[in-house]
Amino acid sequence: MPEIATLESLEQIMVRQRAVRTFTDQPADDALVERLIDAATRAPSAKNVQLLRFIVVRDRALKQQISRLFEQSSEVVPGGPTPWEEVPVLIFVVSDDPFGASPTGALALAGSVYPGIQNLLLAAQAAGLGSVLTTSRGKLKEPEIKKMLNLPDDFQIHAVLPIGYPAVKLGKNKRKPVGEVAFRDRFGEAW
Amino acid sequence: MPEIATLESLEQIMVRQRAVRTFTDQPADDALVERLIDAATRAPSAKNVQLLRFIVVRDRALKQQISRLFEQSSEVVPGGPTPWEEVPVLIFVVSDDPFGASPTGALALAGSVYPGIQNLLLAAQAAGLGSVLTTSRGKLKEPEIKKMLNLPDDFQIHAVLPIGYPAVKLGKNKRKPVGEVAFRDRFGEAW
Repeated sequence: MPEIATLESLEQIMVRQRAVRTFTDQPADDALVERLIDAATRAPSAKNVQLLRFIVVRDRALKQQISRLFEQSSEVVPGGPTPWEEVPVLIFVVSDDPFGASPTGALALAGSVYPGIQNLLLAAQAAGLGSVLTTSRGKLKEPEIKKMLNLPDDFQIHAVLPIGYPAVKLGKNKRKPVGEVAFRDRFGEAW
Repeated sequence: MPEIATLESLEQIMVRQRAVRTFTDQPADDALVERLIDAATRAPSAKNVQLLRFIVVRDRALKQQISRLFEQSSEVVPGGPTPWEEVPVLIFVVSDDPFGASPTGALALAGSVYPGIQNLLLAAQAAGLGSVLTTSRGKLKEPEIKKMLNLPDDFQIHAVLPIGYPAVKLGKNKRKPVGEVAFRDRFGEAW
């Protein structure tokens, strides 16, 4: 069954997705970054709106401004998180909101944003790169970041993704077993 | 470069992810459903809370109740969407909310939910199964569905995923090119 072989190769990638916060100074080239963004576009979006936009920040002065804004020390701690100004690429994932503020609108937006981000993260992992999904940094300093990045008023920041080659080799992720998170027909009924 | 080979195999899966709404009556066996859920658990979650739970509905009477609730005709239209009671498996993706109602809390929740759902959908695609991410159906009828599924009060429904073998072979997805969705350093600056 060729399908199962494909599933196995996908599982190999997914089981190795880890939060990477410490990067080498090896740059990630544009061609590869482009493939990560293409991967993100392949995810589904409600009504196929394809609303995600990606701001790829490499400019060092800009990265320094962002790093300072996030109040992260620029001091290099061996083995600690890489200061954001030293991370090869920062990708800001942004969009407008075509769905409105209703509960179903909020779900449609979230369901149109994070699948794409996850595609990007998986593609990074598959390419030997590392990243980590950070959602709150951009939100906490949204007005300032929007100004720095020339974001239109009606856009919002969903995530900031630092991208680079991992300085440390991480093992597989550990998760709750399926038996603890899956139920049969009704909540609480054993899988 | 073995990493690039891995990225290529991942891209092959992602480029073929399509919304599947018409299914054959071939069942999807438990061992495979279990692998899809395991794939979902591998995605990142804020503070590694691993909050997602999966209710796998196969019971025909329950699927009929759900189908009626969604006001979808049970009439079989050749080539049209499969009535939900005929879909082999319905997976309800649910969770509580450990993050609270602040804007950063909402992002942390969404960023902990949809990456897992996307993993599940990609794994389905890789296994030759089809699905479609529906977010609003469960939300619109949330009180009724919560009762049917014995969901605790503090849980919410993020998505309902019909799972089965696609009745129609679909081609690759079509998306905006990277040049239209990516910017360099600042919004509006050409990639």
